[in-house]
Amino acid sequence: MAGKDIEVLIKQIAKLPSLGSRSARRIVLHLLNKRETAFEPLIAALNNVAQNIKTCEICGNFDTVSPCPICSSPNRDNSIICVVRDVADLWAMERVSLFKGKYHVLGGVLSAMEGIVPEDLNIDNLEKRVALGEVKELLLALPATIDGQITSHYLFSKFKDYNLKITTLAQGIPMGAELDYMDEGTLQLALNSRKVL
Amino acid sequence: MAGKDIEVLIKQIAKLPSLGSRSARRIVLHLLNKRETAFEPLIAALNNVAQNIKTCEICGNFDTVSPCPICSSPNRDNSIICVVRDVADLWAMERVSLFKGKYHVLGGVLSAMEGIVPEDLNIDNLEKRVALGEVKELLLALPATIDGQITSHYLFSKFKDYNLKITTLAQGIPMGAELDYMDEGTLQLALNSRKVL
Repeated sequence: MAGKDIEVLIKQIAKLPSLGSRSARRIVLHLLNKRETAFEPLIAALNNVAQNIKTCEICGNFDTVSPCPICSSPNRDNSIICVVRDVADLWAMERVSLFKGKYHVLGGVLSAMEGIVPEDLNIDNLEKRVALGEVKELLLALPATIDGQITSHYLFSKFKDYNLKITTLAQGIPMGAELDYMDEGTLQLALNSRKVL
Repeated sequence: MAGKDIEVLIKQIAKLPSLGSRSARRIVLHLLNKRETAFEPLIAALNNVAQNIKTCEICGNFDTVSPCPICSSPNRDNSIICVVRDVADLWAMERVSLFKGKYHVLGGVLSAMEGIVPEDLNIDNLEKRVALGEVKELLLALPATIDGQITSHYLFSKFKDYNLKITTLAQGIPMGAELDYMDEGTLQLALNSRKVL
């Protein structure tokens, strides 16, 4: 059907998240049809990232420098560390442009199903950072799933003896949501944590 | 939010068909998380294709060699040329494994809206192939759209004086379709072209 090299490329692209073999084939045809305007710039951008991107030795973020700009910024608050599951969640927090502290990427959450234990996560480095004594607050911004909550509880019990405030993100009804479409768990949670206006 | 190189890569990926900035970001994070198992093989596969893929000088197909394996195959019928809009359609025909002739890729169809005129299409080369005298049938497998049909008519009038059979794909109800869900145009067409059992 297509050359062997093309088939290999289609298979590689089809493995990427949110793509299948059909969309991979469309992408490859698009690249082959626009070699100068799409194919070459894409390869250049991929090479650039592959060659230059490092994992930040302090927080685990991805950037061209290590420590990353967030960790080395003098304008960000060293006294609060926001613990996130992965770099995707770190970027999501940064898009809000509200948090001005530092981050720590765990690299996952504890999971009985997937056999992920504390030793698999980047917790030792977090403890080293906390042990330096500058940190006053640990904001656990982990997913609102069972595994995320178990991980939050684990971290709470691990760090509760340090002189630290340990916080988590508020839970409740998301902005713009219709109550009618909310699951019961969220409604219960929002009701139990109701606030005085 | 992310390093500049990463942002450039996300923008490049977001331009690909069927992707947006959100899925591009997910793909980049996936690649950064799996550098050895996903990132490096993808770059290698892209480089391989970018360096080795040629456009077949005869039919316009993409392959590592030119003429492509279809054009140079001694097992395929030289007397019939299937005219397709693009390589995607050529690959679609090949997936059926039923057609054993040769192909010709037009590189588009005539379009008043997009200002595509006959000179923009790979028609001259088709005429040269036909003029060699070996071709006995031209199968116009163009899209069943207005533009596709206009292109078929144009090709018909251009090649009708050659000693050639000019055919097109049958149109009608697709396999497995409910009549109830068919558009009226298709139903009319299927009714007008009804066959004796």
